[in-house]
Amino acid sequence: MSAKKGCITRERKVELSTRLSRIEGQIKGIKKMLDDDRYCLDILQQVSSIFEALRGVGKVIMRNYLEICATDALQSKRKERQEEIYGELMDIIYKFAK
Amino acid sequence: MSAKKGCITRERKVELSTRLSRIEGQIKGIKKMLDDDRYCLDILQQVSSIFEALRGVGKVIMRNYLEICATDALQSKRKERQEEIYGELMDIIYKFAK
Amino acid sequence: MSAKKGCITRERKVELSTRLSRIEGQIKGIKKMLDDDRYCLDILQQVSSIFEALRGVGKVIMRNYLEICATDALQSKRKERQEEIYGELMDIIYKFAK
Amino acid sequence: MSAKKGCITRERKVELSTRLSRIEGQIKGIKKMLDDDRYCLDILQQVSSIFEALRGVGKVIMRNYLEICATDALQSKRKERQEEIYGELMDIIYKFAK
Repeated sequence: MSAKKGCITRERKVELSTRLSRIEGQIKGIKKMLDDDRYCLDILQQVSSIFEALRGVGKVIMRNYLEICATDALQSKRKERQEEIYGELMDIIYKFAK
Repeated sequence: MSAKKGCITRERKVELSTRLSRIEGQIKGIKKMLDDDRYCLDILQQVSSIFEALRGVGKVIMRNYLEICATDALQSKRKERQEEIYGELMDIIYKFAK
Repeated sequence: MSAKKGCITRERKVELSTRLSRIEGQIKGIKKMLDDDRYCLDILQQVSSIFEALRGVGKVIMRNYLEICATDALQSKRKERQEEIYGELMDIIYKFAK
Repeated sequence: MSAKKGCITRERKVELSTRLSRIEGQIKGIKKMLDDDRYCLDILQQVSSIFEALRGVGKVIMRNYLEICATDALQSKRKERQEEIYGELMDIIYKFAK
C-alpha cells in the first residue's frame, strides 16, 4: 500500500465503477451457468469475456496514471525525478499492460 | 451457445463457485478503493490480482475440458473425431490459456 | 534436456525449418533498420512481427506434441500414465501457449 | 513506414545489435535440434527462450521511446500535442508490451 494520495479523476471513478458493476454481473452469470450444468467451453468463453472487461478497467487506470502521475513527473524540473520515472514506467507497463 | 451438455464435475463446480465468490469480493474491494480515493497504482495492483484469480478459474475449467471432453474424443475409435479434436484443442489452448 | 527421443514428423521439420529461416531474415532486417537510423516505433513494429512468426513456430510444435506425444499417453491403457499427462499438459499449455 | 527520423541512442544500437545476434544464434540452435531429432518439448522450451530474448529487445526500444520520443512530446508546450501522445502511448503500450 502506497501513501500516495488519489489521483483518479471524478469522471474516471464513475466509469470504473460502472465497468466493475458490469463485471460483477458477469461473474454472477458464470455461477448461474455452473448451476445450469452448461458445457465447459461455453463457460470458458465467458471467463474470457471477463478478462476483456477487466482489461478495460486496467486501461482506464493506466491512462489516468500516464496523463496525471507520469506526466507530472516527466514535466518536473528535477532531473533525478525524471530519471526515476522511466524505471517505474517500464515496471508498470510490463507488469500491468495485459 | 453450444448444445453440448455439462461435463464439469461436482467437485470442480464447488471449487469454481468458491473462486468466483472470492473474485466478487475483490471487485467490491476495488470499488471501495475508488471511494477512498486511493493511489491509482495501488488500484492497478489489485486489478492485477483479479487477473490472477480469474486465471485460476480458467485453469480449473481447462483441466476439466482436457480430462473429460478432450480425452473422450482422443480415445474415440472414430478417426475423423480424433482429427477434428486437434484443431479444436489448438483453438482453445491459444484462445483461452492466458 | 530430456532423454526422450524425437517425435516431430518429417513434414513438420521442413515447415519449421522454413519458418525459422524466415525469422532469421527478419532479424537481419531489424539490424539493417538500426543501421539506417529508422524511427524506434517502426522497429518495434518489426519486433512485434517476429513475435507473431515465433508464435507460429511454437504452434507447429505444440500441435505435434498434442497429436503424437499427448495422444499416445492419453490412449495408453495405464491409468497412472493418463493421470500424469494432465498435469504435464496443463504445465505445457500455460507455459508455452503465448 | 514512418517518415520520422531515428532516435535510438548509439549505446542502445550497440546493445540491440548484440541481443539480435544472440537471437540469431538461438535460432540456428533450434534448427540443429530439429536435425538432431530432439524431443519436441525440449525444442518448445528453446522457442520460449527466444520469446524472452525478443522481449528484452522490445524493452530496450520501448524505454528509448519513453525517454526520448514520449518525453519530448509530454514536455512540449503545445497542449494538443500532449493530448495526442496519450492515445499513442496507450496504443503502443497495449500493442507492444508483451
